[in-house]
Amino acid sequence: MGKNLTTRSEDYSKWYNELVVQADLAENSAVRGCMVIKPYGYAIWEKMQAELDRMFKETGHQNAYFPLLVPKSLFEAEEKNAEGFAKECAVVTHYRLQNDPDNPGKLRVDPNAKLEEELVVRPTSEAIIWNTYKGWIQSYRDLPLLINQWANVMRWEMRTRLFLRTAEFLWQEGHTAHATKKEAIAEAEQMNDIYADFAENFMAIPVIKGLKTESERFAGADETYCIEALMQDGKALQAGTSHFLGQNFAKAFDVKFTSKEGKQEHVWATSWGVSTRLMGALIMTHSDDQGLVLPPNLAPNQVVIVPIFKNEEQLEAISEVVNGIVKELRSLGVTVKFDSRDTLRPGAKFAQHELQGVPLRIAIGSRDLENGTVELARRDTLSKETTSIDGIATKVKDLLAEIQLALHDKALNYRDTHITEVNSFDEFKEVLETKGGFISAHWDGTMETEDKIKDLTKATIRCIPLDAVEEPGECMFTGKKSNKRVLFAKAY
Amino acid sequence: MGKNLTTRSEDYSKWYNELVVQADLAENSAVRGCMVIKPYGYAIWEKMQAELDRMFKETGHQNAYFPLLVPKSLFEAEEKNAEGFAKECAVVTHYRLQNDPDNPGKLRVDPNAKLEEELVVRPTSEAIIWNTYKGWIQSYRDLPLLINQWANVMRWEMRTRLFLRTAEFLWQEGHTAHATKKEAIAEAEQMNDIYADFAENFMAIPVIKGLKTESERFAGADETYCIEALMQDGKALQAGTSHFLGQNFAKAFDVKFTSKEGKQEHVWATSWGVSTRLMGALIMTHSDDQGLVLPPNLAPNQVVIVPIFKNEEQLEAISEVVNGIVKELRSLGVTVKFDSRDTLRPGAKFAQHELQGVPLRIAIGSRDLENGTVELARRDTLSKETTSIDGIATKVKDLLAEIQLALHDKALNYRDTHITEVNSFDEFKEVLETKGGFISAHWDGTMETEDKIKDLTKATIRCIPLDAVEEPGECMFTGKKSNKRVLFAKAY
Repeated sequence: MGKNLTTRSEDYSKWYNELVVQADLAENSAVRGCMVIKPYGYAIWEKMQAELDRMFKETGHQNAYFPLLVPKSLFEAEEKNAEGFAKECAVVTHYRLQNDPDNPGKLRVDPNAKLEEELVVRPTSEAIIWNTYKGWIQSYRDLPLLINQWANVMRWEMRTRLFLRTAEFLWQEGHTAHATKKEAIAEAEQMNDIYADFAENFMAIPVIKGLKTESERFAGADETYCIEALMQDGKALQAGTSHFLGQNFAKAFDVKFTSKEGKQEHVWATSWGVSTRLMGALIMTHSDDQGLVLPPNLAPNQVVIVPIFKNEEQLEAISEVVNGIVKELRSLGVTVKFDSRDTLRPGAKFAQHELQGVPLRIAIGSRDLENGTVELARRDTLSKETTSIDGIATKVKDLLAEIQLALHDKALNYRDTHITEVNSFDEFKEVLETKGGFISAHWDGTMETEDKIKDLTKATIRCIPLDAVEEPGECMFTGKKSNKRVLFAKAY
Repeated sequence: MGKNLTTRSEDYSKWYNELVVQADLAENSAVRGCMVIKPYGYAIWEKMQAELDRMFKETGHQNAYFPLLVPKSLFEAEEKNAEGFAKECAVVTHYRLQNDPDNPGKLRVDPNAKLEEELVVRPTSEAIIWNTYKGWIQSYRDLPLLINQWANVMRWEMRTRLFLRTAEFLWQEGHTAHATKKEAIAEAEQMNDIYADFAENFMAIPVIKGLKTESERFAGADETYCIEALMQDGKALQAGTSHFLGQNFAKAFDVKFTSKEGKQEHVWATSWGVSTRLMGALIMTHSDDQGLVLPPNLAPNQVVIVPIFKNEEQLEAISEVVNGIVKELRSLGVTVKFDSRDTLRPGAKFAQHELQGVPLRIAIGSRDLENGTVELARRDTLSKETTSIDGIATKVKDLLAEIQLALHDKALNYRDTHITEVNSFDEFKEVLETKGGFISAHWDGTMETEDKIKDLTKATIRCIPLDAVEEPGECMFTGKKSNKRVLFAKAY
């Protein structure tokens, strides 16, 4: 608190790291690449979870829980998936520690407690889940199977950043099984739509729905749908993915069902997930040099009320009025905190709530009581006004809705002014270096060209937008024919 | 479904295992000792979580998340805690797999990706959390620190049973820090009271609050509070524990604070937890030879409505009436499912809902429509009545409250008639073998006597009840002096 943040223009990356720590969202831990999610950060994640969980359940999904550890023999069953994750797996090899005879007071791995088969800490759960589904699916009557899991996963990333890329992260992973290809594709699309809906209406983050190219696809998927967002520094961030897995896992784990016609067929699959990475997207989309800015729909406290008082008597008089306001706000479904701590001055409280992104702040002192007014401050615009206590609750509720939309529109405006069409590689490089953002360009459809562009510029194809229009053109890099534009960007 | 359960009197243990699987609560997985929690079982766990989480938050606790993996050097810092858990730790030693040159298509641990320091999969999180608290606590203003975590943990148990003892389980673990010993003890007691409240009012399980003896205490605690329940086979089950940790972890991790008087002092600590083990307690307390019996306060569906129809037309007429009932029930806060599946006959649906413990079942056919009646069946008593559709919603709501109390009273009656006072070891052995349950006896207070009794009978001291009255007596085993009775039992 009270420390000055590095500004975004000075050093965006440093600004982000400082903000996450100073706003009490998360911090690095003693375990390489793993973070501690602090109570305030976790409260935001809980709000995200609650909304997503509701959306999943409303579309017929149920939660379940599968083991953390995956036997190596299962992990390696789906070859592409195994290949994709093998390089970043934490592996359990022993099941006991013992006193270290060479170092009194220290422990060591017990050499007699070596596992016959190594266990992989799940980087994703397709393997263990499809091995389980084998026992659950016999007939078309068992389908569709619509399951979600809230869990922790591990991917041994070499370069980590709080929320954006951590060795351990929290996420949800949906795993569904269907009788037909068509139904599975519809499910993958539906879940990508739900992610887009959540991003836009709760996180106030505009996203582009698209398909990944082969090189950016999930290991083991036939098709990966995604939502892509744009951060304030012009870099893109993949905010959620939904995979059509074809029959790859059904074949690897031999999961067949008897169709209505009495035939044995392999099941069709999807998987889809979003993670604590969304916290990074939320922070980077809206926050400013004063700290976090939260959309009201995900703020743990939508309003904070700070009393300005010189003595106990004044605080009592103020509290009486505040309690009425609090009650009225709660009856309207607004979450509000009365910050009556006597250990901090009002200025320090203002600074803390600003840093922590509380959407609205109400300050009320003895003079206000006389006048029947309060001071109302908006976090997003940093504007203040004096307003009547009469009708304050309704005003606050309306203002919260207004802020939610304003944040979305601001982000949308930034995003839309940062999609640039280019028709040559020179133009591409120039826009990438000067303006950033999404670059819409023709591409010849080959992995080779995509790789070369990546090597030369660090930009990747973020997605082939679902709403891309057919348009004859030439690949900006090779000049070969192309029939639609794709979106490139540097990405988190 | 439809398979016959082994009865409790035939083989209680087999009955339990079959019930858990047949009622779709959980099953064993491909990973030794680890279970899959199936959607129906997980839905019950979610209801438990929601209530507990509310109770924790109402008493000022906040959720946070700490890393899964604990570096060995932190794990071993608090000596007793390390010693207590070292023998059952899963240990991560490597961070990469590679293609196995000797087995094409297979993977092996990459010998070049060995960790410098091994990482223990958390069996409990005191070590990683207290290492973190060191950075969070400087002054008395930072106290109390009241944090809870919902997480998975691993303990490499040799003999496992679904829910009751699994290598991985889900739990919550509270970890709090306080300025004074008195305050920490009050917190440990408060959380044990919350567990008792939850067990009695939501799970409908009567519990005895008590203290553990030294040999049953949590490794690293100065005192362990517990709630002990009694299962239908006369064995006790520890349903929750709350530990006063003294300054043990503060000293091991050097966590000090500046007091109001400006002195540097070590912090006082508690930790407390309940786990998916509660599912085992819930199942074993109330269920019968027909399957699961759920208390209404934790049932995912409190009421199920089954239509009896011969054709589409009848179903439509019934549905219209049912939709009205459903709406009314929901407005009263009752969770209800209209089971209109056309793939199962009513009898098969009845069997399924009975097996899965739905508290109330309403059946409604064409004849009922004419008469303005429904058939209402109670799961706990297996009784049925025909009753008027008018006022059915209110009747159902009242009946659910009645069932909740009836289950508790039945369990309380069983428990109270299975607490036996004995005054000699012969009597003790006889009661243990013939009747089981809790045995209230004098004990000389030594670990030696406790161990001998355990070796001879497998019974342990479940707790020293908090409400035990001072009463002069002699240890039933050694004849030495004792001033209060303790509770012995064989336990899960």
